[in-house]
Amino acid sequence: MRVLMIGDIVGRPGLSTLYHFLPRLKRSFQPDVVVANGENAADDGRGITRGIAREMFGAGVDCITLGNHAWDKREIFDFIDQEARMVRPANFPEGTPGQGYTVIPSPRGELAVVNLMGRSFLSTLDCPFREADAILRTLKGKPVLVDFHAETTSEKQALAWYLDGRVSAVIGTHTHVQTGDERILPQGTAYLSDVGMVGPYDSILGMEKESVVKRFVTQLPVRFEVSGGRTQFNAVLLDFHRTSGLAENIQRIRIDDDQPWFD
Amino acid sequence: MRVLMIGDIVGRPGLSTLYHFLPRLKRSFQPDVVVANGENAADDGRGITRGIAREMFGAGVDCITLGNHAWDKREIFDFIDQEARMVRPANFPEGTPGQGYTVIPSPRGELAVVNLMGRSFLSTLDCPFREADAILRTLKGKPVLVDFHAETTSEKQALAWYLDGRVSAVIGTHTHVQTGDERILPQGTAYLSDVGMVGPYDSILGMEKESVVKRFVTQLPVRFEVSGGRTQFNAVLLDFHRTSGLAENIQRIRIDDDQPWFD
Amino acid sequence: MRVLMIGDIVGRPGLSTLYHFLPRLKRSFQPDVVVANGENAADDGRGITRGIAREMFGAGVDCITLGNHAWDKREIFDFIDQEARMVRPANFPEGTPGQGYTVIPSPRGELAVVNLMGRSFLSTLDCPFREADAILRTLKGKPVLVDFHAETTSEKQALAWYLDGRVSAVIGTHTHVQTGDERILPQGTAYLSDVGMVGPYDSILGMEKESVVKRFVTQLPVRFEVSGGRTQFNAVLLDFHRTSGLAENIQRIRIDDDQPWFD
Amino acid sequence: MRVLMIGDIVGRPGLSTLYHFLPRLKRSFQPDVVVANGENAADDGRGITRGIAREMFGAGVDCITLGNHAWDKREIFDFIDQEARMVRPANFPEGTPGQGYTVIPSPRGELAVVNLMGRSFLSTLDCPFREADAILRTLKGKPVLVDFHAETTSEKQALAWYLDGRVSAVIGTHTHVQTGDERILPQGTAYLSDVGMVGPYDSILGMEKESVVKRFVTQLPVRFEVSGGRTQFNAVLLDFHRTSGLAENIQRIRIDDDQPWFD
Ligand SMILES: [Fe+2]
Ligand SMILES: [Fe+2]
Ligand SMILES: [Fe+2]
Ligand SMILES: [Fe+2]
Ligand SMILES: [Fe+2]
Ligand SMILES: [Fe+2]
Ligand SMILES: [Fe+2]
Ligand SMILES: [Fe+2]
Repeated sequence: MRVLMIGDIVGRPGLSTLYHFLPRLKRSFQPDVVVANGENAADDGRGITRGIAREMFGAGVDCITLGNHAWDKREIFDFIDQEARMVRPANFPEGTPGQGYTVIPSPRGELAVVNLMGRSFLSTLDCPFREADAILRTLKGKPVLVDFHAETTSEKQALAWYLDGRVSAVIGTHTHVQTGDERILPQGTAYLSDVGMVGPYDSILGMEKESVVKRFVTQLPVRFEVSGGRTQFNAVLLDFHRTSGLAENIQRIRIDDDQPWFD
Repeated sequence: MRVLMIGDIVGRPGLSTLYHFLPRLKRSFQPDVVVANGENAADDGRGITRGIAREMFGAGVDCITLGNHAWDKREIFDFIDQEARMVRPANFPEGTPGQGYTVIPSPRGELAVVNLMGRSFLSTLDCPFREADAILRTLKGKPVLVDFHAETTSEKQALAWYLDGRVSAVIGTHTHVQTGDERILPQGTAYLSDVGMVGPYDSILGMEKESVVKRFVTQLPVRFEVSGGRTQFNAVLLDFHRTSGLAENIQRIRIDDDQPWFD
Repeated sequence: MRVLMIGDIVGRPGLSTLYHFLPRLKRSFQPDVVVANGENAADDGRGITRGIAREMFGAGVDCITLGNHAWDKREIFDFIDQEARMVRPANFPEGTPGQGYTVIPSPRGELAVVNLMGRSFLSTLDCPFREADAILRTLKGKPVLVDFHAETTSEKQALAWYLDGRVSAVIGTHTHVQTGDERILPQGTAYLSDVGMVGPYDSILGMEKESVVKRFVTQLPVRFEVSGGRTQFNAVLLDFHRTSGLAENIQRIRIDDDQPWFD
Repeated sequence: MRVLMIGDIVGRPGLSTLYHFLPRLKRSFQPDVVVANGENAADDGRGITRGIAREMFGAGVDCITLGNHAWDKREIFDFIDQEARMVRPANFPEGTPGQGYTVIPSPRGELAVVNLMGRSFLSTLDCPFREADAILRTLKGKPVLVDFHAETTSEKQALAWYLDGRVSAVIGTHTHVQTGDERILPQGTAYLSDVGMVGPYDSILGMEKESVVKRFVTQLPVRFEVSGGRTQFNAVLLDFHRTSGLAENIQRIRIDDDQPWFD
């Protein structure tokens, strides 16, 4: 099974870039399942709306994962419980709207997608390690992609080693910067600390760079808006073994003016 | 001018890996200056000793940068003021032992090396942006390499954009994971969010993975030791223009069993 | 000189409570100067407006201090530079609008009021200790009241010991809970870790308790509004020596239904 | 039932002060149960040993609570499972050595003591709110004292409101500074944001003030040792209704040179 996992889509520039490259990448790589992190897909880069989720599904995304920005747009509470293809971090307390994992059908079988969130410098949630254990007990036998939305490399590596051999892949999101440490761990789990983002390239995590710099320099509140200008596309391509579900290949995809894509 | 910047060296495995690859890389790439982050070079991965600094210089490192672990070994206070080739984060308060920047001679001219530390989730230091401004006023005209030791991608990108065109390169350290976002910003500053580390490969940031996982899962205090086993080597190669000092090229170097090095 | 320092005023209930008790307290205690923290005085408990500042001055407050919420209402940038009786934390970067200290005239001489903000778990500002040193160099000889807006008791106690004998008083704000550790340090500086707040009593830091509890329990975003219901009034009364400016007396004032005030 | 709850005992000075005042307080106030937070009772102020726990029990403490320093002395793992009168924060993961609550017999019936730890700026533990719910289901009908070891006033107040009417008292620890906000909430739960500490008075949270100040000013690592000199004693006296277990009275006890104790 081949899975394309796409990093945090940021605002309208991120969506346009997604719509531009996804058909091309599908043609080239023929993924069975496309997963994208949508926590920044709303116009202002905070959260996601029903309309944008529909756009993303319509453009060929099979599953949307989220993160700390999951709830930024209030309307998510109106539709997340109806949307089987969307997951929010599973280690929110029991009773939280939405679901922490889902199973996506594909021509080559089902893929389970799990969303977890880190706690270091991020959120006071339930333990992502024990949550992963609990979810895996219900998912026996399926290939499993984990989107681990976390800040620190230590927590990301720790979860990957903890799950090595028990899931197909642990792919980090949240930092909006793609890391270059893709590998397959000894027991067969593919790992990448962060897959990166899709959206403005001359920006700071997708937001206007001038505003963010001003914030750091002045320490005053500054309104961040999604940046304009040229964009980037970050993703990772994963191949899972047909029967074991373990990873056979992991390949980063980075597309921008410095590393252009040629069909 | 060609500069090789090497990520955080972790413990004895990191040093051995450095000693193994540095001569080979020098032969292949002929860097004029070699800079390495030494904040984890001590045997237990915390700080650096005089003996180890000498070893590193002896092995061909021209300048050692540091970070939040700078002071972990007390003896550093005995020698840092005498060591012109070592820098600790410049945005410690005035009067802090050691220096925040230095100038390294090379066959192709001098290179200024500046060490700064981020404040997001890290340390309550002076503002690294204003500290950079102050240092640059004294360094007019020289090529400048900034080792920005910081946790978050937003602070790293912000400093890079802030200094774009004013320094030769902003290279991040501290996360111990190499990022894949190397680029030259529009005004000529080379940028990489994190150069990564040198040391144990099957580890968590260089430390024994079992201990770190146990810490996350149990939340109990666990003693972390430098891991054994096979190692990795992360660095970045930078070319600066002969007269302007601006970046002409940036190339990541990742060496491990998954991406081996062949001379 | 007698100074009445009043804790963070929260929203309209805080202002009403201030207007109710201030005349009575003035009659009873005859303070020469009244200082109040106004960082939560706006209707929604975030920041302060020009109109509300005027109200507070009109009601008998001589000086308004601020904190991390200083900038929550944008209009503050329009008037803070014209308002000599308002101070924002002094350890914001140079060039920040407003001023970090001011001198308030009174029948018994001038009182300098300094506002500083802590960095532990709060804000990445300049060092409050060194900022205090710098300000004190310009204030030689005057009695000085420091409003130290900070989260942790360790940073608050540290600043108080650091300034002992050099200022008249270090009074903490920000936690909205009055501490019971009032004392005069050995060299003559009055100290109270936190003076508390003025506003809703059956609340969490002044905000509706149901919302804040919901936030902690669900970890979902919840809009906090200023609570209704009965209120509390927290302040501290300070006496400074006529010539030395050192503290002679410190007395907490707590008024609520459990500890009512009788003229 | 009358309960004396004593704040964090810091080092040998804290223990000596405890041994001095506890007999006197028992004589004066005749508490049925004495609870003390022992997380800083070891000689260096970090953790607790078996010997010191025995000393404290021998001196008349009936129950020892802990906090973030619970595990600082390794030997605690050797005896905590055998010690029915000691509790560590209950919201550590299942399987953690020791227990999160216990039941203490007294002449006037049993008292349940629950230890919980906050997560804001402190520890990535399980949710203390849900943990409290779970424990209360097993404790139906008993008076319950909760030691909530937490940093922020918002989390402390939130837990108190959450448990109002369901437990006898929520008493905060950890900041080492006694707050002056004691009250009985509308449904009958006694509340104090922090009970304070027992130990060095001219100190910072019990540690040598010079070292802590140096740490804040220089940002360099500084070894903190328990301070010498005169001491303070902070506690709170609670009366719970004979049948309902709800609070009838709460009275702070602060003893130091500024507020001396006279039998
Ligand atoms: Fe994101
Ligand atoms: Fe995120
Ligand atoms: Fe490091
Ligand atoms: Fe570091
Ligand atoms: Fe406030
Ligand atoms: Fe505040
Ligand atoms: Fe403590
Ligand atoms: Fe504590």
